[in-house]
Amino acid sequence: MSVLIVGSTALDSIKTPKAENPKLLGGSASHAAVAASFFGPVNLIGVVGEDFPKRYLDLYKRHRIGLEGLQILPGKTFHWSGEYEANMNNRRTLLTELGVFETFTPTLPSKQQNSPFVLLANIAPSLQSHVLSQMRRPKFVVADTMDLWLNIALPDLLKLLKRLDGFVLNDSEAHQLTQEDNVFAALKKIHKLGPKYVVIKKGSHGSLLSGPKGYFICPAYPLRKVLDPTGAGDSFVGGMMGYLAAAKGGIEQNIRRAMIYGSVVASFCCEGFGLNQTTRTTRAQIETRVKELERLTRF
Amino acid sequence: MSVLIVGSTALDSIKTPKAENPKLLGGSASHAAVAASFFGPVNLIGVVGEDFPKRYLDLYKRHRIGLEGLQILPGKTFHWSGEYEANMNNRRTLLTELGVFETFTPTLPSKQQNSPFVLLANIAPSLQSHVLSQMRRPKFVVADTMDLWLNIALPDLLKLLKRLDGFVLNDSEAHQLTQEDNVFAALKKIHKLGPKYVVIKKGSHGSLLSGPKGYFICPAYPLRKVLDPTGAGDSFVGGMMGYLAAAKGGIEQNIRRAMIYGSVVASFCCEGFGLNQTTRTTRAQIETRVKELERLTRF
Repeated sequence: MSVLIVGSTALDSIKTPKAENPKLLGGSASHAAVAASFFGPVNLIGVVGEDFPKRYLDLYKRHRIGLEGLQILPGKTFHWSGEYEANMNNRRTLLTELGVFETFTPTLPSKQQNSPFVLLANIAPSLQSHVLSQMRRPKFVVADTMDLWLNIALPDLLKLLKRLDGFVLNDSEAHQLTQEDNVFAALKKIHKLGPKYVVIKKGSHGSLLSGPKGYFICPAYPLRKVLDPTGAGDSFVGGMMGYLAAAKGGIEQNIRRAMIYGSVVASFCCEGFGLNQTTRTTRAQIETRVKELERLTRF
Repeated sequence: MSVLIVGSTALDSIKTPKAENPKLLGGSASHAAVAASFFGPVNLIGVVGEDFPKRYLDLYKRHRIGLEGLQILPGKTFHWSGEYEANMNNRRTLLTELGVFETFTPTLPSKQQNSPFVLLANIAPSLQSHVLSQMRRPKFVVADTMDLWLNIALPDLLKLLKRLDGFVLNDSEAHQLTQEDNVFAALKKIHKLGPKYVVIKKGSHGSLLSGPKGYFICPAYPLRKVLDPTGAGDSFVGGMMGYLAAAKGGIEQNIRRAMIYGSVVASFCCEGFGLNQTTRTTRAQIETRVKELERLTRF
């Protein structure tokens, strides 16, 4: 089955202590869509400006990502610039130019309103809701978010949460949303806001699923060197949804393995700037790391 | 086989935002010895003052911990007092009274010099080395440490490291010791300092083993409520060594499961002040949580 992904499509300029990479292909939807594309058909909903490089459109196409829902509008593509500290965890935003995103209202091509799997990747929760309202009868809807929306659009996010099957956020966001220091106490409160499945991302510490059948502790793939973690969370949830959409059987039966696949795609993402390494990765390399994670956690 | 444990034997006064508990039984050796006692015979090497409550000696005895190596000297028992913040991760030391520990020189009863498993629980590395020098041919020697010794006794610690089979430390200590932000890069450097097995404790994020056969990602048992994490790391390594000493087969074959058992005993430790919950725990309860961890990590 196919996955519909809405989110940001951006140009990212990323600085680390060792390198500087201007105008890489970025945005939550770009990372999530490429990640999901390893497993099956993906359609992207987003907007870019007239300055969007043709080579990035070609990149989407090489990954067989459906672009019927990608608007190309007069104006500039969303541009984000950030700088990482040496530990690769702390980052600060240097610049945010919304460009064509300022007035973006996603309208779904009619075919895509039937998409069974919907990933509302990180973007304003009002836009996530707007897309969701155009869907007919989706089978499984998951949203990701970021601290910005907790700060400036919490009422919108709370409305969205009631309509989700699954919600993905990181540990500091879970703390911010619930005022709970303990992640398991936070999970309990987040379920009460709506979603049946909640996934908490913990970066290099892996992730946690809380669902109807309890918890799953999902490891991160061990990386000795992280070049650029931008988009790792988007790759994680994109890989997860791509795997779920392609897998035979129900959500409950597949969601743990789906998280493992998401975790592995995210590990490749961290090994290159922007999408450089993810786009070089093969399905066979993904399978190798999944098998390694099995060995690394067996006891 | 039996485990010999040397470390601190203390009275801990612990403050949290919700409670205050004066003069609990504490110290690295107390926590580690009780944890190890679930699996087989344990002998304790330590020192207490004449003020040490008889009920704490009785507690050791109820756990069948051999006390031939526990000196009772004129003076006061080591007293540590600390306060936790609401998140139960950050703590500050309010008071440290070394008492009889100031002049402690552990001398091993002759029988115990043959102990096959040796746990040098957290204590000054010079004392850890002093104990190790009295051992005949130990089969497996593991040491734990803390940031204090990295700050004030690094040369002693580096000397000790060359003589160890296994070394246990937490993630911030690994960073401090190696100047590596990435934990896998840190592990590589720590192996070069001597130990074949290195375990990095990450609190509620679990722990990591690096050994001759690669990594093991060990989960922490999910706890919705942490009452007092004091001694959790000592319980972890104590449980691990207790399990290893009792298990049939070699280290390599058992060390992953040993870490899981250590992790579970540590989870009980966190659920009560001092040793209150650990001492109430049964082996059957430990087995239940080990099985749960199997379910929580399977994919």
